[in-house]
Amino acid sequence: MGKQPEITPDHPVCSIARSLEYLKDRWTFLIVRNALSGTVRFSDFRDELGISTDLLTRRLAALVDGGILEKRSYQEAGSRARLSYHLTPAGGELLVALGALQQWGDRHCPPQGGPSALRRSRSTGGTLRVAYVDEEGAAVDLADVRMVLVRPPGQG
Amino acid sequence: MGKQPEITPDHPVCSIARSLEYLKDRWTFLIVRNALSGTVRFSDFRDELGISTDLLTRRLAALVDGGILEKRSYQEAGSRARLSYHLTPAGGELLVALGALQQWGDRHCPPQGGPSALRRSRSTGGTLRVAYVDEEGAAVDLADVRMVLVRPPGQG
Repeated sequence: MGKQPEITPDHPVCSIARSLEYLKDRWTFLIVRNALSGTVRFSDFRDELGISTDLLTRRLAALVDGGILEKRSYQEAGSRARLSYHLTPAGGELLVALGALQQWGDRHCPPQGGPSALRRSRSTGGTLRVAYVDEEGAAVDLADVRMVLVRPPGQG
Repeated sequence: MGKQPEITPDHPVCSIARSLEYLKDRWTFLIVRNALSGTVRFSDFRDELGISTDLLTRRLAALVDGGILEKRSYQEAGSRARLSYHLTPAGGELLVALGALQQWGDRHCPPQGGPSALRRSRSTGGTLRVAYVDEEGAAVDLADVRMVLVRPPGQG
């Protein structure tokens, strides 16, 4: 991957905290979310999110720099070349974390008017959820999951 | 659940954004993480995280108010009553989102010295991962997952 969030004594090495670095800014978060639902063109991000061109340019640059998106150029007949932004493999894998956050929010702070997004299988159209699975890929009950902190918790 | 993050025009109704409200403050996040790995006593949170008593008191109060933790009193022989903090069912379910964030971070920004936490089955001791599963509880490939935004993306 590209540049990583800086790690300092005030910013301990912690996988979760480092992942959140990419998501905790509201605009970055919405850009990643829309990228995960299929948006690729600069103009579509701008129109869908109602974000200013300047702000969008900066946030996209940071996501390219962080290895989440990659920039491509495309050209339609009669138009000048324009930019599109595509998820890298690492960016695409954020779908698990975003889906899990979404699922939790829909369950425990249900928005007015129902869920804001749905997770579906492309092949069957069936509803999907995010869960822990074992080495054979079978879902396990949450009560069976143990999170073991390996390093001192304050530094973990 | 208890009090929810305020929803304003600048803070659109979005399940993921609302979930992140509970996690994006660094201390809140570390407290939830340690709670998910089994910490319950005020004094253990304080010692593990190296957080000041004042700060810990405020963050724990906010998590109780938000319906993530619940406060109990316990007493050991010869000591005064002390406080412990236990995950509510909603708080316990954050284990999926935190596990997913952790997994992403370990994979794409591997910390020096290896992962900071492991996810294991309590019953078999086997390694667990977070994934999308179908209605039968079978893991599906990430390429088969489609996230469908239901409401206008900027407001979703």
